Amino acid sequence: MLRTHTCGELNASNTGEKVILCGWVARRRDHGKLIFIDLRDRHGFTQVVFSPRDCPGAYDQAQGLRSEFVIKITGIVNKRPQGTLNPKLPTGEIEILAQDLEILNTSATPAFEIEEDSDIAEETRLKYRYLDLRRKKVFDNFILRSKVYRIIRNFLDPLGFIECETPILTKSTPEGARDYLVPSRINPGYFYALPQSPQLFKQILMVAGIEKYYQIAKCFRDEDLRADRQPEFTQLDLEMSFIEEEDIFSLTEELMKLIFKGIKGIEIKTPFVRITFAQAQNKYKSDKPDLRKELNTEFAFAWVTDFPLFKYNAQEKRWESEHHPFTAPHKDDIDKLQEAPDKVKSRSYDLVLNGTEIGSGSIRIHNQKLQEKIFDVIGINKDEAHKRFGFLLEAFQFGAPPHGGIALGLDRLLAVLAGESSIREVIAFPKTSIAVCPLTSAPSEVDEKQLKELNLTVKKGGVNEKRR
Amino acid sequence: MLRTHTCGELNASNTGEKVILCGWVARRRDHGKLIFIDLRDRHGFTQVVFSPRDCPGAYDQAQGLRSEFVIKITGIVNKRPQGTLNPKLPTGEIEILAQDLEILNTSATPAFEIEEDSDIAEETRLKYRYLDLRRKKVFDNFILRSKVYRIIRNFLDPLGFIECETPILTKSTPEGARDYLVPSRINPGYFYALPQSPQLFKQILMVAGIEKYYQIAKCFRDEDLRADRQPEFTQLDLEMSFIEEEDIFSLTEELMKLIFKGIKGIEIKTPFVRITFAQAQNKYKSDKPDLRKELNTEFAFAWVTDFPLFKYNAQEKRWESEHHPFTAPHKDDIDKLQEAPDKVKSRSYDLVLNGTEIGSGSIRIHNQKLQEKIFDVIGINKDEAHKRFGFLLEAFQFGAPPHGGIALGLDRLLAVLAGESSIREVIAFPKTSIAVCPLTSAPSEVDEKQLKELNLTVKKGGVNEKRR
Repeated sequence: MLRTHTCGELNASNTGEKVILCGWVARRRDHGKLIFIDLRDRHGFTQVVFSPRDCPGAYDQAQGLRSEFVIKITGIVNKRPQGTLNPKLPTGEIEILAQDLEILNTSATPAFEIEEDSDIAEETRLKYRYLDLRRKKVFDNFILRSKVYRIIRNFLDPLGFIECETPILTKSTPEGARDYLVPSRINPGYFYALPQSPQLFKQILMVAGIEKYYQIAKCFRDEDLRADRQPEFTQLDLEMSFIEEEDIFSLTEELMKLIFKGIKGIEIKTPFVRITFAQAQNKYKSDKPDLRKELNTEFAFAWVTDFPLFKYNAQEKRWESEHHPFTAPHKDDIDKLQEAPDKVKSRSYDLVLNGTEIGSGSIRIHNQKLQEKIFDVIGINKDEAHKRFGFLLEAFQFGAPPHGGIALGLDRLLAVLAGESSIREVIAFPKTSIAVCPLTSAPSEVDEKQLKELNLTVKKGGVNEKRR
Repeated sequence: MLRTHTCGELNASNTGEKVILCGWVARRRDHGKLIFIDLRDRHGFTQVVFSPRDCPGAYDQAQGLRSEFVIKITGIVNKRPQGTLNPKLPTGEIEILAQDLEILNTSATPAFEIEEDSDIAEETRLKYRYLDLRRKKVFDNFILRSKVYRIIRNFLDPLGFIECETPILTKSTPEGARDYLVPSRINPGYFYALPQSPQLFKQILMVAGIEKYYQIAKCFRDEDLRADRQPEFTQLDLEMSFIEEEDIFSLTEELMKLIFKGIKGIEIKTPFVRITFAQAQNKYKSDKPDLRKELNTEFAFAWVTDFPLFKYNAQEKRWESEHHPFTAPHKDDIDKLQEAPDKVKSRSYDLVLNGTEIGSGSIRIHNQKLQEKIFDVIGINKDEAHKRFGFLLEAFQFGAPPHGGIALGLDRLLAVLAGESSIREVIAFPKTSIAVCPLTSAPSEVDEKQLKELNLTVKKGGVNEKRR
């Protein structure tokens, strides 16, 4: 370690100790006889004093310090003189009298002031994300994320959930959005798809007898972007066997209770309000009603249930799945599948928080005959079903247990917890609305050699002239 | 919950209780007057008895049960009669006298016996991975993985490491293997690359002042495959600021101590043996020596240090980086950079376990002038450096702290812990040696429409006729 302490931990009880601190120069104040530096690291600020009398060498060097230089200070912890204490700072009782200064790195003038509160264009912030992340408000969103992950795992692990990784290079999944494709070099003309979710794999894991699965999983959808959409996003994906809706509801509620208690210190009330889709449409004209006013609370959760199993695609004149084709219908509605698909309610559920859908799930179909009936309604014939989901349908022949689960959108949940309106604020390196990363400039052009190895050609006129 | 207990938890103390169990039929034994079922779930086996006298309905139904049917049993816990106890089974003192049987799902005849110990072709096992995972030996490898992840996080979280996600859709990284590319639809002719590691991002996070970062990260390399290589693999990626080699060594050793204690119950000796690259080559003719015999232990760790910074590419007649171009040289060797690049030692280190490299890392360059000198030696001019790593070089101008880290190959570590020779045994859904997933058949052909949206054409003759 190059340091003995962080910039956030020294106080009057350390008086007289010789310490070594490392950090960034946040502010330099030259008082003529003394130079003061506010030294910043992730943990806080510590005031450092350079005196020409006590240590002329370090004093001289300190005159050259500029904002965001990285330095290493050796010095003695002193109580600050009466009247100069800063009660707002945890280290505000003390200062370090510098004995030695080492400049670990210089810095060009930052594109924006780190301490500045004023609005900086998002594109600039993202291009210089490493500067942006030095700002406490931005950094705190990532502390928040890691805390929430810890709460999730510390809750699920002791309950017997197995964390299991599913592939990123895989086959098209049934969510219905556009897939990102990855050309295979070894299998020319063939493509992997990045998963829109681990849906099919978590169902396979239930057939495999895992019983309780979870994963904090990256999901990919090539959709046009908005504030709450990104090409890649993170969800808490979980699935259980031998359960019913109530088990998912109570598990999720318990988890939310722990997260809001742990992060916000708030006791949220469980069980959550439950509203059927029909009620929600009737009363709120929305399937994700914001109940904050009605419930008189800062964070208003609701389960929306009993979604229709199908929706009618007027353009293509056919029924399609509202959720995905593996969602189970209500038992009582099974006999309506043929004659009145519009009347069939599903065993799916959405979790809504403050008018935002933060989770979605269902009890799945585990019976093959029922599955075939569903495909029949949505006009997927056996061949097509086999082509798209064949491996899951085949797996279902070998003793699939009753199962169901939920996926919680962690970026959206974190944005609500952080009081941010865009999920970009809780993603370390997000993409812009045209799916570009301002930091790395990805996506970018590639060598002809790479395309040749993949047996691909880019069509003429296809290259984006705007970005060249 | 459809059940009151798992198949692994009932014993004599539960005698007389009415219970509900769910699981798979592992074995059915028809003794004429009685039918016995070994009911299996993830937790174990429980014996269920169907008697025509006690419950004729369930008895009749039980006659139709076959292997891997999924059933729900309601019954009474009875002590097994004298002489029929099974001391090998945690539930071997009891059996369930069935009162009710519900067949939750039937099963076709499995492609292989679940209980069978004999060798099954790997391709078959992977195609029916959901059957394969029902075998205890296979399943246990995934319990192992989730346990190891828990140990890692419970160790790093309290030390102030921030778990931070880095992008999967990103720009080419400097490891030098082949990238997987993802065409951008919104930016025609442009491609994302899947990360070969989060190397550049973790260095950016150090410039951002995160100080301590970790991530259990997916990495992607389009290389030809072997037993210990997969298109996607998982590493524990970590990085720290204001540190030196010793900090990474002691942190990693402490983590390995916890893992081997927690998983194997073994106290491994720290500090690990350290060998310079030169010594290793001299004495063992290998940079990953297997020291088990020498150290007389089942698990022999060693740090290999002082690798040369460069290796000579005789074909292209130029020096290239042995590790990656951000690896710091030894301070004493900096003046040899121009005149004797072969003599320059690096501040990189490999962690070797039983002759397998399970980790690799280095102290990085944080000084821009030094970085330029290195690029100069390996013949990367400013333009090319900027094109490939421009965003990192730019970041380095704004107060980059001294930093370093390590990446541990979790699949390899888990394979050693599980006593498996192939990392495929510890990956839930691995790919074969031609990068195909036997379960999903990924990669696969895609619709012309999808390629059109991406402005791509597959060259004629490029389609893999073998797989059609």
